[in-house]
Order: sequence, then structure tokens, then C-alpha cells
Amino acid sequence: MTPLSPVDQIFLWLEKRQQPMHVGGLHIFSFPDDADAKYMTELAQQLRAYATPQAPFNRRLRQRWGRYYWDTDAQFDLEHHFRHEALPKPGRIRELLAHVSAEHSNLMDRERPMWECHLIEGIRGRRFAVYYKAHHCMLDGVAAMRMCVKSYSFDPTATEMPPIWAISKDVTPARETQAPAAGDLVHSLSQLVEGAGRQLATVPTLIRELGKNLLKARDDSDAGLIFRAPPSILNQRITGSRRFAAQSYALERFKAIGKAFQATVNDVVLAVCGSALRNYLLSRQALPDQPLIAMAPMSIRQDDSDSGNQIAMILANLGTHIADPVRRLELTQASARESKERFRQMTPEEAVNYTALTLAPSGLNLLTGLAPKWQAFNVVISNVPGPNKPLYWNGARLEGMYPVSIPVDYAALNITLVSYRDQLEFGFTACRRTLPSMQRLLDYIEQGIAELEKAAGV
Amino acid sequence: MTPLSPVDQIFLWLEKRQQPMHVGGLHIFSFPDDADAKYMTELAQQLRAYATPQAPFNRRLRQRWGRYYWDTDAQFDLEHHFRHEALPKPGRIRELLAHVSAEHSNLMDRERPMWECHLIEGIRGRRFAVYYKAHHCMLDGVAAMRMCVKSYSFDPTATEMPPIWAISKDVTPARETQAPAAGDLVHSLSQLVEGAGRQLATVPTLIRELGKNLLKARDDSDAGLIFRAPPSILNQRITGSRRFAAQSYALERFKAIGKAFQATVNDVVLAVCGSALRNYLLSRQALPDQPLIAMAPMSIRQDDSDSGNQIAMILANLGTHIADPVRRLELTQASARESKERFRQMTPEEAVNYTALTLAPSGLNLLTGLAPKWQAFNVVISNVPGPNKPLYWNGARLEGMYPVSIPVDYAALNITLVSYRDQLEFGFTACRRTLPSMQRLLDYIEQGIAELEKAAGV
Repeated sequence: MTPLSPVDQIFLWLEKRQQPMHVGGLHIFSFPDDADAKYMTELAQQLRAYATPQAPFNRRLRQRWGRYYWDTDAQFDLEHHFRHEALPKPGRIRELLAHVSAEHSNLMDRERPMWECHLIEGIRGRRFAVYYKAHHCMLDGVAAMRMCVKSYSFDPTATEMPPIWAISKDVTPARETQAPAAGDLVHSLSQLVEGAGRQLATVPTLIRELGKNLLKARDDSDAGLIFRAPPSILNQRITGSRRFAAQSYALERFKAIGKAFQATVNDVVLAVCGSALRNYLLSRQALPDQPLIAMAPMSIRQDDSDSGNQIAMILANLGTHIADPVRRLELTQASARESKERFRQMTPEEAVNYTALTLAPSGLNLLTGLAPKWQAFNVVISNVPGPNKPLYWNGARLEGMYPVSIPVDYAALNITLVSYRDQLEFGFTACRRTLPSMQRLLDYIEQGIAELEKAAGV
Repeated sequence: MTPLSPVDQIFLWLEKRQQPMHVGGLHIFSFPDDADAKYMTELAQQLRAYATPQAPFNRRLRQRWGRYYWDTDAQFDLEHHFRHEALPKPGRIRELLAHVSAEHSNLMDRERPMWECHLIEGIRGRRFAVYYKAHHCMLDGVAAMRMCVKSYSFDPTATEMPPIWAISKDVTPARETQAPAAGDLVHSLSQLVEGAGRQLATVPTLIRELGKNLLKARDDSDAGLIFRAPPSILNQRITGSRRFAAQSYALERFKAIGKAFQATVNDVVLAVCGSALRNYLLSRQALPDQPLIAMAPMSIRQDDSDSGNQIAMILANLGTHIADPVRRLELTQASARESKERFRQMTPEEAVNYTALTLAPSGLNLLTGLAPKWQAFNVVISNVPGPNKPLYWNGARLEGMYPVSIPVDYAALNITLVSYRDQLEFGFTACRRTLPSMQRLLDYIEQGIAELEKAAGV
């Protein structure tokens, strides 16, 4: 039995009924040209033949004296993990998203290896989908996506490709290799909490350390800048019901807008999200007077000579109080640039401390359920780079891959996107009770792109 | 806001991740003759039109100072409760049971009214299904079944029938009217616990009271008889994964066997379950040397002059150590008769105390997680009377209705059956990890009926 790393233990501590700590991915495939009516049944049968999982998919939790350990599951039962499902007619993307929303709401069983793979048939237009689900203590979203990508191929003629759980790996747990780059809020928070505690800390110790960070921030006029996020409906307690919405948008459109305004693709992504959030909040009659603040993990590498992948949690003003899309983009761009600049001038230790400060209020929320008076940001927007060529799985082409992430108390919406081929694949995961009709964000994103295209004359 | 009754609160206390406290029902319908390809989509649309639920389907929990209250859900969202789903091909009963097993494993969201209605299409042979799910604190299984039956009609031409959640009811909560008759283990336990505590009791108080019962039992040689259930794989801690298996058997076959051996239908049901459990345990190489003991709620009314519905929790020796089916039936029959006789000779107070004693070990298990040295029974087998004429829902004929119940720690299998038309509808609900391949019980039940038919020469 191997003890879980302190970071991984924290995901188990933080989990509660209303706040499950699992991540997911929705992958949509098109049938190979020669697929016949039995294709899905046969695919399911083939997958069921891989009844022996490889690490980490064969690991279950054990609890001893309050600590968690990984143990090999001696009674592994694939039927619990691999599920063959279908959409009701008419089998549109709408039915698919409703299905994934319901599945993503369900807590995972801690007595078993904490992963699921749902093979979903009955989608219109000769397509099928796979919804992957894994507990964050086992895999983070970025690591999970990379493992999926590894299990696919760039070769459309490759066959007999085993599913992700059956691929033999001689890897150290994916988390260690990704470390601070993972970029999702929960991951960052647990690393902060680990940093505060050093050894396996108790919850009260963690809370004390986080409290110190906050007090320091209040006395530090410079740091005061980072506590400007207004209260909003995004920042309420959540329930256990999830809504997942996803859509692909052409990367080219973001590039063209960026070119017109001398902005990066990431700046345009932030501006488009700001536009969508503004319209959503207006539709709910809940737009704060003050602009929303986004936290976005971004590379701050200045040139190719820097080795490693320096990621900072930048804070960007989304300008949601501004109606004009171009002025909004300019504000967001300037604020992201300033935030990146600030990080570049810091020593690595300063950067870590600054990030800790940013995350501390959310960390306190998560650990104590007490909302501090300050919120450093309203929403997390992560942009994860993926492969730029089409992938295949036993001849089926991967048309889109969408991250399904974790909303937490006081951060009821998570926006994660992946670049794949020539697309940006947006995944919105939210508490559906806190943020009703959240799927409208898909239309508002389209609207946000279109208004900038119009302004840019492209 | 109305406080929950103490019994209902207990279902919330007892619930844990590995032991969800919801009940369900699987109802299989055949399409009306004139149904076309759009039938299911239109039915789903019609049902979605009933967006305003009636009590108790509009009630959500609130927690104040450790107590639970019912409150009207001001943000009711039908999409969370009503779900339109489909089976993957080939859409056999096997796929349906796998689907229900997975759904029944999921904990319910306490922030919302705790019920779900799953409309399931894609079943072979012009059929569809509805899987109902409700938390036991809102409805018990018997009450839920009766409400469903009320929402259907004996008239095949009746149309515009609203779904169960939209039927206006001026009823007191169903629980009060059913009281001790409900006959499921969890219900009985919570009533015992309530009896022990009287007012809203604390868990330590309840444990003390239950412990007293147990100590009394040990010192009481008469009561010692009821602690003879052997340890078995049915009586282990459970996990949160469920397997549900269901099948209809002709009531006539049970009647014919009963006639041949001068046994009641209930005796034959117990004997057939004993046979199936014996074969299942043999297949797992886990048959105890001592016979399994079943607890079965049964009417002990002696004639029609007695008003009310006197139900006793009788203990029956299933004779699982005996290979010969007829000797096994005789033993079970004699033991059930003796147990009923014992109840008949008791005053009502004595009967209540005796039942409490029977239930105490399981109550202690549930409340403390500590398994006492004695087990009063190995398995609960409930036979619930249902309507004897075919029911219809908007012209669709109800072909079968199967109860989906609650396994708990140290009672990993629940057998509940309903009589409907000329059938006995068996529902087996188990922890699928504790009892692997439990669905084999369906074949073993058939085998158990056949061997008695052969012996009876029918």
C-alpha cells in the first residue's frame, strides 16, 4: 500500500456531497466509413475484453488511521467502470450534454478504483461519444487528457488499440510530472494548502496558515489590488447538480481578431468569455457594477531560452461593466499584460507567495465553508494546449474533446478549453441550481466572437 | 417549514456514501397498438409539460440547528427530476437491469426534492420502462408503489393522465398511514430506533437503548432462539455499488406447489428463495453449515373479524443446509408457522418488544458500524400485495412492476416482491461488490420453482 501524496489526500478532504471532486472529458468521435449497424455493440464487446486494468486504473483507496493509501483492487469489476449507454431520440448534442450533466453530478464510489468510462451511442450524424470520469485524487484533468491523447493515434488505419485503462504505463503518477501547471482551481488550491502545511497537515493548521496569508494581504497595500472581485451569482455556495455545456469554435476566428487588435489568442479568449458572462449576467439581471475578475493560468515564458514551463495564475479584469466590445477587449488585454508583467518581475518565491495570496480566500472557503470578505477572482478560465492534428481511435476520428471540470463553493462556474486541431473546444461546468440556464453561454460565446469580428472588420 | 418526523430524520442520519437510503421501482410498459416512431419523444414532451409538482414532490430539505425540515422548493427544475434516457443496443432486459443498477447506485442531491423519474426507451419488443427513485425520508417503497398504482388506470382507453408528481393529493404524508406495515428493513429499524428514543433522540441515546435490548436478549433464554442466523457473505459491510435483478414468475405455479404441499403462497416463496440462496452460496463456495434465517413481514390476522392489518416480522428458517427441496420446504413452512403462532400468542406489547429484539443487532450495525456477535436474520424477504388486474398509463399497458430496495451494512441483499395481475414480480437489490454475479439468483429462483413442481408432480 502506497500512501497518497498530501495534495491528493486534500481532494478527498475537500469532497462533499454538494462538491464532488472528480474531473471528466467528453470526446466525440465519428464512425469509420465502413462501420455497420453492429459497430457500437462490437466496440463495447471489444472494450469489455480488456478486463485487467493497469495502474493507476487498478488502484483503490484504503483508509488507515485517518490517512489514505492506494491499494491494488483484488476484486476489480469492469462493469462498474465501463458503461455502455445510449441517448434518447433525437440524439442531438443537446441530449448528449444533458446525459453528461447528469452523470457528472454523481459522486464516485470510494470502495473502487475511482474512474469511469461511458461509451455513448445513439448520437445523430454517425457519431458516438466517450465520457471519461476520474477522481481528482487519482488524475487531474490535464493529465487525464494527455493520457487519453496517448491512447489514441494520429494514424487512421491503426487498429486493436486498447482503451486507456489497459495501456501499460511505466510512469510516475501523472500528477508529479505536471505539478503546478495543471491550472485548475482545485489543483492549485490543494497545492497551496500543501505548501502551507508542509507535512501532512491537519485542517486546523491549514486554516491558520491561510488566515495568516489573508491578514498579511489586508495589511499590505500592494496586495490589496488583488481583492477587487465583486460579489456575483457566480460566487455562491453550490449544490451537487451539474450542468455541462460544450462547443467547438474555430481557432482561426480568435487568431484573426487577435491580429486585428494586436492581442494574443488568450486575450481574445478572455474577452469573449467576458462578453458571454456579461450577457449571461444581464439575462439573469445580476450583472455587478464592478467588473468580474478571472483567474487564468498562463505561461509567462518570455523566450525559448527558458527551459521548463513557467505558469502563473494571472488575474484579468474582464471589463464586464463595459458595453463596447472593443473597449472591453482593450481593458482585459491591458490587465492580463500587467498581471503577466508583474509576475515576470517577481522572484520565483515572490510569485509563489503572490499566487498563494490570490488563492487564500478560496482555500478558506473550501476548508471552512466561511466566505471571507474578499474574493480575489470570480471565475477560473483555463486554456489547455492539445494536439493540433486529428486523432483516431481504432479508425474512428476524434471530432472534439471537451474538458468537464469541478465547480466549488463560491466558484460555481468553471471554464476550461482545449485547443485541438484547428478548434478551441470550450467546456463549461457549473452548478445548475446556482446558475440556471447556463448553457446559454454557448450562444453568448458565439455572439462575443461575432461582435469582435464585426469591430475588426474580419 | 414542517419538521420531518423523527422516523424520517433517521433515514438521513443512516445514509452514507456506501449506503444510500433511496428506494425505487422499475415499471415496464408495452406500447399502445397505435404508437408510432415518435411515441417516446412525444411522451417525454408531454411529461415535461407538467413542470409544477404537487406535494410531496415539491418539498426540499432544510437543515436548522441539526434538525431537518421540509420546505417548498422555490426553484423547482423538472429537468433534474425527470430524465429521458435510452438503452444501448440490443436493448434487452439485461441492458435495462444494468442501467437501473447504475442509477440506483447514485446518491441523491439533498438540495432538491429527492425524487427522480427516468423514462427509458430503446427496449426490444415495443416496450419502454420507467424507473422511479425516491429518498426513503420522503416515501417508503410500499407507499411509492401505491402512489404509482393510483396514477395509472384500469381503463386502457384513459388518456391525458398526469405523471405521479403532478397529481394533486390531499393526503397526509403516506408514511403515517402505512406505519409498521411497510415491511422493509430500513423502515422497521427506524421505527424501532424511534421507539427507543421517543422524542427526537440523539444517536448515543439510541445506541444505549438498543444495547439494553441486546443485553436483555442474551440473558433471556427464550429470546436466545432468535439469534441463530449464521455468519454468511450476505452479512458483510457493503459498498455503494448496486446490482438490481428482476423477473416475473407466474403466481399459478406457486399456488399449485402450495396446494400439493398444503403450504401458503408465502411459504412457497420463502422455500424458493431458500433454494435460490442455497444454489447461489454454493456457486460462491460460501454456503454456511447452519441454515440461513429470513425475516419476512407477514399478516398474522386469524380471521376477518380483526380490524386493521396486523403485520409481524416473522423469522423463517430457510433450510439452506438441506439438499432435498421437499424437506427444505417442510422445514421453512414449519418454522414460519411456529413464528406466526408465537406472535399470535403475544400481547401487542410483547410483539413489539420481540420485534425490537429481532431488529436490535441490525439497528446497532446501522448506527455504530459495529457488528454485534449475534445476527437475528440473514436476509429480508418482503411480499407486497399489488393490484390483480392489468394497469394502463395513457394506453400503455403495465407489463411488470419490480421493487428496487435498500441493502444496508450486514444485510447486503434485499428481496422484495409484488403480486401484480397473475404474476409475482421479484426484485433483488444488492451490493454488487459484496455479492458478485447476484443476477444468477433469477435462474436459481426458476430452478427452485421447477424442483418443487417436479416433486409435487405438477
